[in-house]
Order: sequence, then structure tokens, then C-alpha cells
Amino acid sequence: MADQPKRTGSKSHGRLSISASARPRDLMGETPRLKGAWTAKIITLFPEAFPGVLGASLIGKALQEGLWALETIDLRPFGEGKHRNVDDTPTGGGAGMVLRPDVVGRALDHAASGTPPDRKRWPLVYLSPRGKPFTQAIAQQWSEAEGVTLLCGRFEGVDQRVLDHYGIEEISLGDFVLTGGEIAAQALIDATVRLIPRVLGNHASTEDESFQNGLLEHPQFTKPSRWRGHDIPDVLLSGHHGNIARWQQGMAERLTQERRPDLWRAYCERHNRDPGEDQEL
Amino acid sequence: MADQPKRTGSKSHGRLSISASARPRDLMGETPRLKGAWTAKIITLFPEAFPGVLGASLIGKALQEGLWALETIDLRPFGEGKHRNVDDTPTGGGAGMVLRPDVVGRALDHAASGTPPDRKRWPLVYLSPRGKPFTQAIAQQWSEAEGVTLLCGRFEGVDQRVLDHYGIEEISLGDFVLTGGEIAAQALIDATVRLIPRVLGNHASTEDESFQNGLLEHPQFTKPSRWRGHDIPDVLLSGHHGNIARWQQGMAERLTQERRPDLWRAYCERHNRDPGEDQEL
Repeated sequence: MADQPKRTGSKSHGRLSISASARPRDLMGETPRLKGAWTAKIITLFPEAFPGVLGASLIGKALQEGLWALETIDLRPFGEGKHRNVDDTPTGGGAGMVLRPDVVGRALDHAASGTPPDRKRWPLVYLSPRGKPFTQAIAQQWSEAEGVTLLCGRFEGVDQRVLDHYGIEEISLGDFVLTGGEIAAQALIDATVRLIPRVLGNHASTEDESFQNGLLEHPQFTKPSRWRGHDIPDVLLSGHHGNIARWQQGMAERLTQERRPDLWRAYCERHNRDPGEDQEL
Repeated sequence: MADQPKRTGSKSHGRLSISASARPRDLMGETPRLKGAWTAKIITLFPEAFPGVLGASLIGKALQEGLWALETIDLRPFGEGKHRNVDDTPTGGGAGMVLRPDVVGRALDHAASGTPPDRKRWPLVYLSPRGKPFTQAIAQQWSEAEGVTLLCGRFEGVDQRVLDHYGIEEISLGDFVLTGGEIAAQALIDATVRLIPRVLGNHASTEDESFQNGLLEHPQFTKPSRWRGHDIPDVLLSGHHGNIARWQQGMAERLTQERRPDLWRAYCERHNRDPGEDQEL
């Protein structure tokens, strides 16, 4: 727990005015991007929800230090009429409200300013349960891009024409429905930013964790060596690195086989293994 | 957009002192639960990250109105020694830090006070990429429980013995790694709370959305009827409810077949359909 973020105000480096706090950031949209820093642009009706959890811990520290940048784009000012309406009833009937294509289009045009049109360099993403499930491989790809623009939906979603017109990639956090895209955006940003070099520093390893090698991570233990009658497995206390590595690999394989047959089959295919074999430990 | 949450202070009903704001809630852990309200207890090193996004929109309004309750339990005071250390190095070597079983155990014992031991009535969950993937079906089950206790991990995870000793259910947000469990906790709470009766009111429908019937949701459209040369499909403007429903069902099936063959196969099995048949529209 060496690195708790400082929350007692903005730690200015003379170039950045984003501080890691959970309070609304009025100035966030106005903040100039640090040249070259990976940037998340977020189109949302709730800009005050950012950085939220992203302002805490090592991700928040990296935000303060300019290793990545956050730019929220409030959808409301792009709305129609005196009340800046952003949505209307679904054509053909049905419950809920749908975000208007003209309103979202104006916000997307605004967001496109200063970003490369090549979607490999800068993905343009709508967060939706209808999308492609987000994975560690996508987080890895995004972390190697220059940034990402995330459109957060609300209610029944966004007019299909705006998704088609801009060729927006639909990404899903998982097979469940959220009230809006904001939490999903924070999850995707967290998963991506932690893979950017220097963000985690020495505080955690991204090499030896779930999904990096196609397996779930092996069990972890720490002090005390005996707790409520439960001991740490002897092999981990043996100091024999080869045996420890074999035990951890075996546990990771057994856990994956038991809990995630889908991942296990894919792993075995890549390693020419029989998915039915038992893991001996 | 009828219902934006009021953010200008705590809306007291004389029974609740939780307000929906993104600011730290010093008192949140001390707040008495509203009798009978669904409650999320969250064990975390970052209690100030809550309610975060959960304080916004209809979920935040429902929190103010006491339709659900949030109780954060700061892990830090349960730590060891003068510095309240909560973690230590992994036994057997490796990068990162592991949450200690004695520290987590004390926090879990504290959280258990006032909650029924029956895990169907009150699930006890550790958020981990090694867990069972969260789905809409789990959100539905949890929304019918009395509450849930969520343990948020950090770094390399938590000592395996504490998971085994308490029989904690491991749940994963998806096949990616987050810096900590806090964002995952917010996603799981959002997905669950919106299914609690009266939370969404008339503002959105949970009947006609992705996963409720095993299909992805059909495309949505709204005004204007012509936008940048793109028209809304004629059938949706026809006023013929039968044709509209058929079109929407067909589109939902086609989208699921194209994007999620896994969901499509499961849907076809339940409906005695041939998964290879083309969707005619």
C-alpha cells in the first residue's frame, strides 16, 4: 500500500490541471491534453461522474502525473431547443427514450477535433450490451493506440443511424444491462490505462495475471503462515522456485479447467493439449 | 430526460442521511439502513469512490428516496500495526501485494453483523477476474435478495484461505483485469438496483431490452425522421403494431445471430429453432 493518491488538492506540474478527486471537474473539458499522453474522450450526460474511481489509486496518480488524460464532453449543450433536449420517444412505440442522431452527431463532430481519423490509432466506441464483449486483448490494443472516444448511452440507447453513419464500434462490458454507459466507460479506461507503460510501476505485475497467458490466475497467499487453522501450502514456503512455478502453473490450469471450460478449450488448442486431461498437483 | 437527480444537497426524508453526490461520504458507513431496503455493503480501501456514478441519474434518485441503501466498510482500520497494513508480499515470491486473511477476515466479520447467514438471501461476493462471469440472470437473483456484500480486491488479490474459510462466491465482471474491484462493484450494483421495483419507474423498460429474452435488443430510432440523408425504416412509421413487433423481433434475432453466436445457439435450443436458419426481414 505504498501509493495512496494525494487527495488534498491538485498536484500541479505546470501543465496539467486535472487532479485526482471524486469531485465534479468543471475544468476537465477545458484541460489541454498533455502532448502524446493517451487520452480518453467521454461523451456523457454525467460529466461530473468523472474521474470518479479513476481518480483513486495508481490510475489516479498516473492521471495527475500526465501519463494519461481525461476529457469529458457534456452531451447536454448539444441538445435541441431551449431545454437542450437530447432524446425523444422511440419511433414505432415502446418504453424509454432514445438519444437523437442530430444531437449525438454534433457531439461526435466536436470530439473528432484533434483526433486521428484512423480508428486503429483512435477507436470510436459506443458502450452497449449489444456490442462485442470487452476483453483483455481489446484493452491491450487500446493501450497501444493514442486514445479512445467513448459514447455513453442512457435509457433505450442511441438512434441506429448515428452508429451506422460514423461507423461506431459497439463494445459491451458483459451480458448485463446498466443504467448508462458511464460505469462501463470507467471499467474500460481502468483496464486500458493500467497497461500503459509506467502507470503501475513496480506496484503490480501485468505479466503474471489472469488472461495474460489465457489462464485464470493461481491462488495467492501471504502472511500470516497460519490463520484460523489454515496453513499456506508447503511448496510455497519451500524456497524451491522450480517447484513453486510448477505448482502455480498447475493450479492456474486446474482452476481454468474447472471454472471456465471455454477458456480452457482455447488454451489447450493453442498448446496442443487434450482438454480432458486431469491436472496433477 | 425528465429526471435528473437533484445534486444541491441531501434530500432528507428524516430516515436517511445518504445523499446522491460524488463527494466522499464520511457518514455513509454509520447510516442506519432503511428497514427492508435492498442494501449493498462494500468492503473497500477506497470508500470515497462511492457512491460515485451510483449517485447520478435514476439510481442516485432511488438511493436518495431509500429504495436501496449503500454502506461502505473501509478496510484500512482493520489493518495491522501502527500503519494499519492490509497487505503483504505473496508467499513463494512474485510481484505485487496480497490482502492479508486476518485483516479481510475482521472486515468480513464486521460486515456480517445484521445480515442473514443464508447466502441466497444475502450473497457474499469477491470481485475477481477468476470468478464466474456476471450476467443479467445473476443481477435478477441479487435484486430479489435482501442485499449483497461485495469485497473489492486490489493488487494481486486476496489470500486464498479467506475465500475458502468464508465460502465467498467469486464473480467476474468480464475477461479483463481491473486495478481494483470498486468499478466492478459499481457495475454490479447498478445492474442489480435497476431491477428493483420502482427504481426505474416509467423512465425505462426492463422487459424489452438485451438479455431479458435471451436476444440482443433491436435497433432504435427517434426524431428527426430524416437525418443526414438517412431515413427511419418505413415499417416503424407505419403505425401497424403487428408489423413493427415482427420487424423488431426479426432484427433482434438477426443481430444476435451475427454478433453473438453463443447467445443465438442457446436461444434456438430453448425455442426448438435451427440456429442455421436465416432471418428473413
